[in-house]
Amino acid sequence: MKDFAMLARERKTTYEFSNKEVSDELINKILETARWSPSSLNSQPWKFVIIKKKSSIKELVDSSYYGDFHTMPPVIIIPVIDGNYITTGQRGVKDGKVGLTDAYLSIAMPIMNMCLQAKDLGIDSCILTPNEATAKRIINASKKDHAVIMVGLGYELKNVYQKTRERKKLSELVYHEIIKSDD
Amino acid sequence: MKDFAMLARERKTTYEFSNKEVSDELINKILETARWSPSSLNSQPWKFVIIKKKSSIKELVDSSYYGDFHTMPPVIIIPVIDGNYITTGQRGVKDGKVGLTDAYLSIAMPIMNMCLQAKDLGIDSCILTPNEATAKRIINASKKDHAVIMVGLGYELKNVYQKTRERKKLSELVYHEIIKSDD
Repeated sequence: MKDFAMLARERKTTYEFSNKEVSDELINKILETARWSPSSLNSQPWKFVIIKKKSSIKELVDSSYYGDFHTMPPVIIIPVIDGNYITTGQRGVKDGKVGLTDAYLSIAMPIMNMCLQAKDLGIDSCILTPNEATAKRIINASKKDHAVIMVGLGYELKNVYQKTRERKKLSELVYHEIIKSDD
Repeated sequence: MKDFAMLARERKTTYEFSNKEVSDELINKILETARWSPSSLNSQPWKFVIIKKKSSIKELVDSSYYGDFHTMPPVIIIPVIDGNYITTGQRGVKDGKVGLTDAYLSIAMPIMNMCLQAKDLGIDSCILTPNEATAKRIINASKKDHAVIMVGLGYELKNVYQKTRERKKLSELVYHEIIKSDD
């Protein structure tokens, strides 16, 4: 692969997927990298649900808060926050369990890793935030589980509309030692 | 660089840092990759605060919820959630602003990217979750900002204690279509 800076730069949201399937071998490679993600106190508070059923994919994507999808990804992976690893508090660690804020911060790590691993394998991706109740119903999650983010994987359709990728400049974002506060 | 699977596998928490500084050129490369991270609705709800002042670093690390640090990293970067980009609700998008849950999920993306970019440049890292009130005071954050996670960067001391890196097996983590619920 190229250097990491290029990989991270080229990873992007794909809005139109072809109907080409992602092989189980490649899905496994992506999950293997997800498995090594960091998490608060190495709690690994996740279960990975692989979804290929077309009606489930459509319902999950349609329930998502934003995203402008014309064609569905052939596979979605939901890293579910396993309720057995979270406390009722928002922060910190208790009896090897982490607060919900830490669980949210942790669950994003395998999402980022999966998108990057996919890109390195020539697979395109999108990150989506499903309606949680819908997602939990579809995957039969436990009451105490959380399903707040997911990744779609597939191959981009060629010659279709692409949003221009834009980012703020570093000069607008970086502070040294303290923030010049605006309040 | 090696393939991404190897990079993601080799990234780890460093507990003991040498006193070697990280050059501004390398810090900039790491921030440049952070800048291209994904975020809900491409809101980029972050400001990056670079901290090199030793007393600030010690106070930030000491306030963190977990981590067993014997020596301090020479630099910490805090991706602060900019209060101007979040709504009062937990989820979804309103007027180009995202809910707090989405902001937490988003802010973890540059953390993962920075750790991976650091590793690809031969720099070691640690992810820490500071006490938010302490962190906000040190960096003079706005009331509505959130400072819940940060990354320490530096070079690992050689021949020191290392935790064994452990992860659950994929076979314990992966489900197809639905979770066999335990409740």
